[in-house]
Amino acid sequence: MDTFILHEDPCSGNCYKIRLTAALLGLPIERRFYDIRKGETRTPEFLREVNANGRIPVLQIGEGAAARFLPESNAACWYLAEGSALIPDNRFDRADMLRWMFFEQYNHEPNVATLRFWLSIVGEGDLSDAQRGQIAAKRAGGEAALALMDEHLASRDWFAGDRASLADIALYAYTHVGEEGGFRLSDYPAVRAWLDRIAALPRYVPMD
Amino acid sequence: MDTFILHEDPCSGNCYKIRLTAALLGLPIERRFYDIRKGETRTPEFLREVNANGRIPVLQIGEGAAARFLPESNAACWYLAEGSALIPDNRFDRADMLRWMFFEQYNHEPNVATLRFWLSIVGEGDLSDAQRGQIAAKRAGGEAALALMDEHLASRDWFAGDRASLADIALYAYTHVGEEGGFRLSDYPAVRAWLDRIAALPRYVPMD
Repeated sequence: MDTFILHEDPCSGNCYKIRLTAALLGLPIERRFYDIRKGETRTPEFLREVNANGRIPVLQIGEGAAARFLPESNAACWYLAEGSALIPDNRFDRADMLRWMFFEQYNHEPNVATLRFWLSIVGEGDLSDAQRGQIAAKRAGGEAALALMDEHLASRDWFAGDRASLADIALYAYTHVGEEGGFRLSDYPAVRAWLDRIAALPRYVPMD
Repeated sequence: MDTFILHEDPCSGNCYKIRLTAALLGLPIERRFYDIRKGETRTPEFLREVNANGRIPVLQIGEGAAARFLPESNAACWYLAEGSALIPDNRFDRADMLRWMFFEQYNHEPNVATLRFWLSIVGEGDLSDAQRGQIAAKRAGGEAALALMDEHLASRDWFAGDRASLADIALYAYTHVGEEGGFRLSDYPAVRAWLDRIAALPRYVPMD
Protein backbone atom coordinates (compact mmCIF):
# COMPACT_ATOMS: atom_id res chain seq x y z
CA MET A 1 0.00 0.00 0.00
CA ASP A 2 1.13 3.56 -0.71
CA THR A 3 2.49 5.74 2.07
CA PHE A 4 0.18 8.63 2.91
CA ILE A 5 1.63 11.93 4.11
CA LEU A 6 -0.68 14.75 5.19
CA HIS A 7 0.74 18.26 4.75
CA GLU A 8 -1.31 20.17 7.30
CA ASP A 9 -1.82 22.82 9.94
CA PRO A 10 -3.43 21.26 13.02
CA CYS A 11 -5.69 24.31 13.54
CA SER A 12 -7.38 23.62 10.18
CA GLY A 13 -10.63 21.70 10.06
CA ASN A 14 -10.00 20.96 6.39
CA CYS A 15 -6.84 19.07 7.42
CA TYR A 16 -8.68 17.31 10.23
CA LYS A 17 -11.22 15.89 7.75
CA ILE A 18 -8.49 13.88 6.06
CA ARG A 19 -7.01 12.68 9.33
CA LEU A 20 -10.47 11.64 10.56
CA THR A 21 -11.21 9.80 7.31
CA ALA A 22 -7.92 7.91 7.54
CA ALA A 23 -8.58 7.07 11.20
CA LEU A 24 -12.11 5.75 10.54
CA LEU A 25 -10.67 3.59 7.74
CA GLY A 26 -7.77 2.36 9.87
CA LEU A 27 -5.21 3.82 7.42
CA PRO A 28 -1.90 5.04 8.84
CA ILE A 29 -1.04 8.59 7.82
CA GLU A 30 2.13 10.56 8.49
CA ARG A 31 1.76 14.22 9.40
CA ARG A 32 3.92 17.19 8.27
CA PHE A 33 3.15 20.45 10.01
CA TYR A 34 3.03 24.00 8.62
CA ASP A 35 1.91 27.23 10.29
CA ILE A 36 -0.34 29.08 7.84
CA ARG A 37 -0.16 32.24 9.98
CA LYS A 38 3.61 32.34 9.37
CA GLY A 39 3.24 31.89 5.60
CA GLU A 40 4.81 28.45 5.65
CA THR A 41 2.57 27.28 2.77
CA ARG A 42 3.61 30.22 0.57
CA THR A 43 7.35 29.53 0.41
CA PRO A 44 8.87 28.91 -3.04
CA GLU A 45 9.66 25.35 -2.00
CA PHE A 46 6.09 24.60 -0.89
CA LEU A 47 4.61 26.18 -4.03
CA ARG A 48 6.98 24.18 -6.24
CA GLU A 49 6.91 20.81 -4.53
CA VAL A 50 3.59 20.49 -2.70
CA ASN A 51 0.88 22.84 -4.00
CA ALA A 52 1.12 25.72 -6.48
CA ASN A 53 -2.08 27.08 -4.89
CA GLY A 54 -0.20 27.70 -1.61
CA ARG A 55 -2.79 25.96 0.50
CA ILE A 56 -3.09 23.06 2.83
CA PRO A 57 -4.20 20.36 3.29
CA VAL A 58 -2.40 18.38 0.62
CA LEU A 59 -2.44 14.60 0.68
CA GLN A 60 0.84 13.16 -0.57
CA ILE A 61 0.56 9.65 -1.97
CA GLY A 62 3.86 7.79 -2.12
CA GLU A 63 7.35 9.19 -1.70
CA GLY A 64 10.34 10.32 -3.75
CA ALA A 65 10.08 10.60 -7.51
CA ALA A 66 6.80 8.65 -7.58
CA ALA A 67 5.05 10.92 -5.08
CA ARG A 68 1.75 12.46 -6.16
CA PHE A 69 0.07 15.42 -4.46
CA LEU A 70 -3.65 15.93 -3.99
CA PRO A 71 -4.91 19.31 -2.71
CA GLU A 72 -8.51 20.03 -1.65
CA SER A 73 -9.61 18.31 1.51
CA ASN A 74 -12.74 16.69 0.14
CA ALA A 75 -10.91 15.26 -2.89
CA ALA A 76 -8.26 13.79 -0.57
CA CYS A 77 -10.97 12.19 1.58
CA TRP A 78 -12.50 10.71 -1.58
CA TYR A 79 -9.14 9.22 -2.61
CA LEU A 80 -8.67 7.54 0.77
CA ALA A 81 -12.24 6.26 1.03
CA GLU A 82 -12.84 4.86 -2.45
CA GLY A 83 -14.18 1.32 -2.18
CA SER A 84 -15.00 1.68 1.54
CA ALA A 85 -18.30 2.01 3.38
CA LEU A 86 -17.66 5.75 3.75
CA ILE A 87 -18.85 6.17 0.13
CA PRO A 88 -22.40 4.89 -0.51
CA ASP A 89 -22.69 2.16 -3.12
CA ASN A 90 -26.01 3.46 -4.42
CA ARG A 91 -25.63 5.86 -7.36
CA PHE A 92 -28.05 8.51 -6.11
CA ASP A 93 -26.68 8.39 -2.56
CA ARG A 94 -23.13 8.74 -3.85
CA ALA A 95 -24.02 11.87 -5.83
CA ASP A 96 -26.05 13.12 -2.86
CA MET A 97 -22.96 12.69 -0.67
CA LEU A 98 -20.98 14.82 -3.14
CA ARG A 99 -23.83 17.35 -3.08
CA TRP A 100 -23.33 17.90 0.66
CA MET A 101 -19.55 18.04 0.22
CA PHE A 102 -19.90 20.81 -2.39
CA PHE A 103 -22.42 22.54 -0.12
CA GLU A 104 -19.82 22.36 2.62
CA GLN A 105 -17.16 24.09 0.55
CA TYR A 106 -19.52 26.70 -0.90
CA ASN A 107 -22.06 27.53 1.80
CA HIS A 108 -20.57 26.30 5.06
CA GLU A 109 -16.78 26.58 5.13
CA PRO A 110 -16.49 30.19 3.84
CA ASN A 111 -18.83 31.27 6.65
CA VAL A 112 -18.52 28.90 9.62
CA ALA A 113 -14.79 28.19 9.22
CA THR A 114 -13.79 31.71 8.24
CA LEU A 115 -15.51 33.28 11.28
CA ARG A 116 -13.76 30.76 13.53
CA PHE A 117 -10.41 31.65 11.93
CA TRP A 118 -11.03 35.39 12.16
CA LEU A 119 -12.49 35.47 15.68
CA SER A 120 -10.58 32.68 17.49
CA ILE A 121 -7.27 32.37 15.63
CA VAL A 122 -6.47 35.78 14.06
CA GLY A 123 -8.43 37.71 16.69
CA GLU A 124 -11.05 40.39 16.01
CA GLY A 125 -8.63 43.21 16.79
CA ASP A 126 -6.26 42.10 14.04
CA LEU A 127 -8.84 41.91 11.25
CA SER A 128 -8.75 44.31 8.29
CA ASP A 129 -11.66 46.69 7.73
CA ALA A 130 -12.68 44.63 4.70
CA GLN A 131 -12.82 41.50 6.86
CA ARG A 132 -14.76 43.25 9.61
CA GLY A 133 -17.22 44.46 6.98
CA GLN A 134 -17.98 40.87 6.01
CA ILE A 135 -18.69 39.52 9.48
CA ALA A 136 -22.46 40.15 9.38
CA ALA A 137 -22.88 38.48 5.98
CA LYS A 138 -20.78 35.50 7.06
CA ARG A 139 -22.75 35.22 10.28
CA ALA A 140 -26.01 35.11 8.30
CA GLY A 141 -24.57 32.64 5.78
CA GLY A 142 -23.29 30.36 8.54
CA GLU A 143 -26.60 30.40 10.40
CA ALA A 144 -28.43 29.58 7.15
CA ALA A 145 -26.10 26.64 6.51
CA LEU A 146 -26.57 25.31 10.05
CA ALA A 147 -30.36 25.76 9.83
CA LEU A 148 -30.46 23.79 6.57
CA MET A 149 -28.37 21.03 8.14
CA ASP A 150 -30.65 20.96 11.19
CA GLU A 151 -33.75 20.69 9.02
CA HIS A 152 -32.17 17.86 7.00
CA LEU A 153 -31.08 15.95 10.11
CA ALA A 154 -34.46 16.33 11.83
CA SER A 155 -35.69 13.27 9.92
CA ARG A 156 -32.50 11.29 9.31
CA ASP A 157 -29.32 10.23 11.08
CA TRP A 158 -26.77 10.91 8.31
CA PHE A 159 -26.47 13.34 5.42
CA ALA A 160 -26.54 10.87 2.53
CA GLY A 161 -27.56 7.22 2.42
CA ASP A 162 -28.23 5.35 5.64
CA ARG A 163 -24.87 5.47 7.39
CA ALA A 164 -21.92 7.77 8.00
CA SER A 165 -20.25 8.92 4.79
CA LEU A 166 -17.69 11.50 3.69
CA ALA A 167 -20.48 14.09 3.69
CA ASP A 168 -20.77 13.70 7.45
CA ILE A 169 -17.00 13.93 7.94
CA ALA A 170 -16.73 17.03 5.74
CA LEU A 171 -19.53 18.84 7.55
CA TYR A 172 -18.44 17.68 11.00
CA ALA A 173 -14.98 19.25 10.85
CA TYR A 174 -15.96 22.91 11.21
CA THR A 175 -19.45 22.41 12.67
CA HIS A 176 -18.22 20.76 15.86
CA VAL A 177 -15.97 23.76 16.60
CA GLY A 178 -18.58 26.26 15.41
CA GLU A 179 -18.80 27.86 18.87
CA GLU A 180 -15.25 29.17 18.26
CA GLY A 181 -16.74 31.24 15.45
CA GLY A 182 -19.57 32.48 17.64
CA PHE A 183 -22.24 30.05 16.42
CA ARG A 184 -24.53 28.78 19.19
CA LEU A 185 -24.93 25.07 18.50
CA SER A 186 -27.70 24.73 21.10
CA ASP A 187 -29.91 26.45 18.52
CA TYR A 188 -29.53 23.35 16.32
CA PRO A 189 -30.60 20.27 18.31
CA ALA A 190 -30.59 17.82 15.39
CA VAL A 191 -27.07 18.95 14.48
CA ARG A 192 -25.96 18.46 18.10
CA ALA A 193 -27.30 14.91 18.19
CA TRP A 194 -25.56 14.14 14.88
CA LEU A 195 -22.25 15.51 16.20
CA ASP A 196 -22.55 13.00 19.06
CA ARG A 197 -23.20 10.17 16.62
CA ILE A 198 -20.02 11.00 14.73
CA ALA A 199 -17.91 11.24 17.87
CA ALA A 200 -19.19 7.75 18.80
CA LEU A 201 -18.03 6.11 15.54
CA PRO A 202 -15.45 3.33 16.00
CA ARG A 203 -11.83 4.60 15.58
CA TYR A 204 -12.96 8.27 15.79
CA VAL A 205 -10.12 10.69 16.58
CA PRO A 206 -10.62 14.22 17.94
CA MET A 207 -9.20 17.40 16.44
CA ASP A 208 -5.90 18.45 18.05
CA MET B 1 -33.88 5.34 -18.34
CA ASP B 2 -34.97 8.00 -15.87
CA THR B 3 -36.29 11.32 -17.09
CA PHE B 4 -33.96 14.21 -16.28
CA ILE B 5 -35.38 17.66 -15.57
CA LEU B 6 -33.06 20.59 -15.00
CA HIS B 7 -34.44 23.36 -12.78
CA GLU B 8 -32.38 26.31 -13.95
CA ASP B 9 -31.84 29.95 -14.80
CA PRO B 10 -30.26 30.22 -18.26
CA CYS B 11 -27.96 33.06 -17.11
CA SER B 12 -26.28 30.72 -14.60
CA GLY B 13 -23.04 29.00 -15.52
CA ASN B 14 -23.70 26.45 -12.78
CA CYS B 15 -26.86 25.41 -14.64
CA TYR B 16 -25.03 25.36 -17.97
CA LYS B 17 -22.49 22.84 -16.59
CA ILE B 18 -25.24 20.26 -16.21
CA ARG B 19 -26.73 20.97 -19.62
CA LEU B 20 -23.27 20.71 -21.22
CA THR B 21 -22.55 17.43 -19.41
CA ALA B 22 -25.86 15.96 -20.60
CA ALA B 23 -25.20 17.15 -24.17
CA LEU B 24 -21.68 15.67 -24.30
CA LEU B 25 -23.13 12.38 -23.06
CA GLY B 26 -26.06 12.48 -25.51
CA LEU B 27 -28.59 12.44 -22.67
CA PRO B 28 -31.91 14.25 -23.21
CA ILE B 29 -32.73 16.74 -20.48
CA GLU B 30 -35.89 18.80 -19.99
CA ARG B 31 -35.49 22.40 -18.85
CA ARG B 32 -37.62 24.33 -16.34
CA PHE B 33 -36.83 28.02 -16.10
CA TYR B 34 -36.70 30.31 -13.05
CA ASP B 35 -35.56 33.91 -12.78
CA ILE B 36 -33.31 34.20 -9.72
CA ARG B 37 -33.46 38.01 -9.89
CA LYS B 38 -37.24 37.81 -9.32
CA GLY B 39 -36.89 35.45 -6.35
CA GLU B 40 -38.47 32.53 -8.18
CA THR B 41 -36.23 30.03 -6.35
CA ARG B 42 -37.26 31.37 -2.93
CA THR B 43 -41.00 30.71 -3.17
CA PRO B 44 -42.54 28.37 -0.54
CA GLU B 45 -43.36 25.89 -3.30
CA PHE B 46 -39.78 25.82 -4.64
CA LEU B 47 -38.30 25.50 -1.16
CA ARG B 48 -40.67 22.65 -0.30
CA GLU B 49 -40.62 20.68 -3.53
CA VAL B 50 -37.31 21.37 -5.26
CA ASN B 51 -34.58 22.68 -2.94
CA ALA B 52 -34.82 23.82 0.69
CA ASN B 53 -31.61 25.80 0.04
CA GLY B 54 -33.48 28.06 -2.41
CA ARG B 55 -30.88 27.68 -5.13
CA ILE B 56 -30.58 26.42 -8.64
CA PRO B 57 -29.48 24.35 -10.44
CA VAL B 58 -31.31 21.28 -9.22
CA LEU B 59 -31.30 18.09 -11.25
CA GLN B 60 -34.59 16.24 -10.92
CA ILE B 61 -34.34 12.52 -11.58
CA GLY B 62 -37.65 10.88 -12.43
CA GLU B 63 -41.13 12.34 -12.03
CA GLY B 64 -44.12 12.25 -9.70
CA ALA B 65 -43.89 10.47 -6.36
CA ALA B 66 -40.61 8.75 -7.31
CA ALA B 67 -38.82 12.00 -8.26
CA ARG B 68 -35.51 12.71 -6.55
CA PHE B 69 -33.82 16.09 -6.43
CA LEU B 70 -30.09 16.77 -6.58
CA PRO B 71 -28.81 20.30 -5.90
CA GLU B 72 -25.20 21.45 -6.41
CA SER B 73 -24.10 21.63 -10.03
CA ASN B 74 -20.99 19.50 -9.70
CA ALA B 75 -22.83 16.71 -7.89
CA ALA B 76 -25.49 16.70 -10.61
CA CYS B 77 -22.77 16.46 -13.30
CA TRP B 78 -21.27 13.54 -11.39
CA TYR B 79 -24.64 11.74 -11.30
CA LEU B 80 -25.12 12.10 -15.05
CA ALA B 81 -21.55 11.11 -15.95
CA GLU B 82 -20.96 8.07 -13.72
CA GLY B 83 -19.67 5.21 -15.81
CA SER B 84 -18.84 7.46 -18.78
CA ALA B 85 -15.53 8.69 -20.20
CA LEU B 86 -16.13 12.08 -18.53
CA ILE B 87 -14.96 10.51 -15.23
CA PRO B 88 -11.41 9.06 -15.38
CA ASP B 89 -11.15 5.37 -14.58
CA ASN B 90 -7.81 5.77 -12.80
CA ARG B 91 -8.18 6.27 -9.03
CA PHE B 92 -5.76 9.18 -8.71
CA ASP B 93 -7.10 10.96 -11.79
CA ARG B 94 -10.67 10.60 -10.50
CA ALA B 95 -9.75 12.21 -7.17
CA ASP B 96 -7.71 14.83 -9.04
CA MET B 97 -10.79 15.63 -11.13
CA LEU B 98 -12.77 16.16 -7.92
CA ARG B 99 -9.90 18.30 -6.63
CA TRP B 100 -10.40 20.75 -9.53
CA MET B 101 -14.16 20.67 -9.08
CA PHE B 102 -13.80 21.63 -5.40
CA PHE B 103 -11.27 24.30 -6.42
CA GLU B 104 -13.87 25.60 -8.86
CA GLN B 105 -16.51 25.99 -6.16
CA TYR B 106 -14.15 27.44 -3.56
CA ASN B 107 -11.59 29.56 -5.44
CA HIS B 108 -13.10 30.23 -8.86
CA GLU B 109 -16.89 30.52 -8.78
CA PRO B 110 -17.14 32.92 -5.78
CA ASN B 111 -14.78 35.30 -7.61
CA VAL B 112 -15.11 34.84 -11.38
CA ALA B 113 -18.84 34.06 -11.40
CA THR B 114 -19.81 36.54 -8.71
CA LEU B 115 -18.09 39.46 -10.48
CA ARG B 116 -19.85 38.52 -13.71
CA PHE B 117 -23.19 38.45 -11.88
CA TRP B 118 -22.53 41.75 -10.12
CA LEU B 119 -21.08 43.66 -13.07
CA SER B 120 -23.00 42.26 -16.07
CA ILE B 121 -26.31 41.06 -14.63
CA VAL B 122 -27.09 43.12 -11.51
CA GLY B 123 -25.10 46.14 -12.75
CA GLU B 124 -22.49 48.05 -10.76
CA GLY B 125 -24.91 50.87 -9.95
CA ASP B 126 -27.27 48.49 -8.18
CA LEU B 127 -24.68 46.83 -5.91
CA SER B 128 -24.76 47.32 -2.15
CA ASP B 129 -21.85 49.02 -0.39
CA ALA B 130 -20.84 45.67 1.08
CA GLN B 131 -20.72 44.15 -2.40
CA ARG B 132 -18.76 47.07 -3.82
CA GLY B 133 -16.29 46.70 -0.95
CA GLN B 134 -15.56 43.12 -2.02
CA ILE B 135 -14.85 43.80 -5.70
CA ALA B 136 -11.08 44.25 -5.29
CA ALA B 137 -10.69 41.05 -3.26
CA LYS B 138 -12.81 39.09 -5.74
CA ARG B 139 -10.82 40.53 -8.65
CA ALA B 140 -7.57 39.37 -7.01
CA GLY B 141 -9.04 35.96 -6.15
CA GLY B 142 -10.33 35.48 -9.69
CA GLU B 143 -7.01 36.47 -11.27
CA ALA B 144 -5.20 34.05 -8.94
CA ALA B 145 -7.55 31.22 -9.94
CA LEU B 146 -7.08 31.96 -13.65
CA ALA B 147 -3.30 32.19 -13.24
CA LEU B 148 -3.21 28.81 -11.49
CA MET B 149 -5.32 27.30 -14.27
CA ASP B 150 -3.04 28.83 -16.92
CA GLU B 151 0.06 27.43 -15.22
CA HIS B 152 -1.55 23.98 -14.99
CA LEU B 153 -2.64 24.01 -18.64
CA ALA B 154 0.75 25.21 -19.91
CA SER B 155 1.95 21.59 -19.88
CA ARG B 156 -1.25 19.63 -20.40
CA ASP B 157 -4.45 19.66 -22.46
CA TRP B 158 -6.99 18.79 -19.74
CA PHE B 159 -7.28 19.35 -16.00
CA ALA B 160 -7.22 15.72 -14.83
CA GLY B 161 -6.25 12.55 -16.65
CA ASP B 162 -5.58 12.65 -20.38
CA ARG B 163 -8.93 13.70 -21.81
CA ALA B 164 -11.86 15.99 -21.10
CA SER B 165 -13.53 15.28 -17.76
CA LEU B 166 -16.07 16.92 -15.47
CA ALA B 167 -13.26 19.11 -14.11
CA ASP B 168 -12.97 20.77 -17.51
CA ILE B 169 -16.74 21.23 -17.81
CA ALA B 170 -16.99 22.71 -14.30
CA LEU B 171 -14.17 25.19 -14.90
CA TYR B 172 -15.26 26.02 -18.43
CA ALA B 173 -18.72 27.30 -17.47
CA TYR B 174 -17.70 30.59 -15.86
CA THR B 175 -14.22 30.91 -17.38
CA HIS B 176 -15.46 31.20 -20.96
CA VAL B 177 -17.69 34.14 -20.01
CA GLY B 178 -15.05 35.63 -17.70
CA GLU B 179 -14.82 38.81 -19.79
CA GLU B 180 -18.36 39.64 -18.58
CA GLY B 181 -16.85 39.91 -15.10
CA GLY B 182 -14.02 42.09 -16.30
CA PHE B 183 -11.35 39.37 -16.56
CA ARG B 184 -9.07 39.72 -19.58
CA LEU B 185 -8.71 36.20 -20.95
CA SER B 186 -5.95 37.25 -23.36
CA ASP B 187 -3.70 37.35 -20.27
CA TYR B 188 -4.11 33.56 -20.01
CA PRO B 189 -3.09 31.97 -23.34
CA ALA B 190 -3.11 28.37 -22.13
CA VAL B 191 -6.62 28.88 -20.76
CA ARG B 192 -7.73 30.37 -24.07
CA ALA B 193 -6.42 27.39 -26.04
CA TRP B 194 -8.16 25.00 -23.60
CA LEU B 195 -11.47 26.89 -24.02
CA ASP B 196 -11.18 26.27 -27.76
CA ARG B 197 -10.54 22.55 -27.18
CA ILE B 198 -13.73 22.28 -25.13
CA ALA B 199 -15.84 24.16 -27.67
CA ALA B 200 -14.59 21.68 -30.30
CA LEU B 201 -15.76 18.57 -28.39
CA PRO B 202 -18.36 16.46 -30.24
CA ARG B 203 -21.96 17.37 -29.19
CA TYR B 204 -20.80 20.58 -27.45
CA VAL B 205 -23.64 23.07 -26.84
CA PRO B 206 -23.10 26.77 -26.13
CA MET B 207 -24.50 28.71 -23.18
CA ASP B 208 -27.78 30.48 -24.03
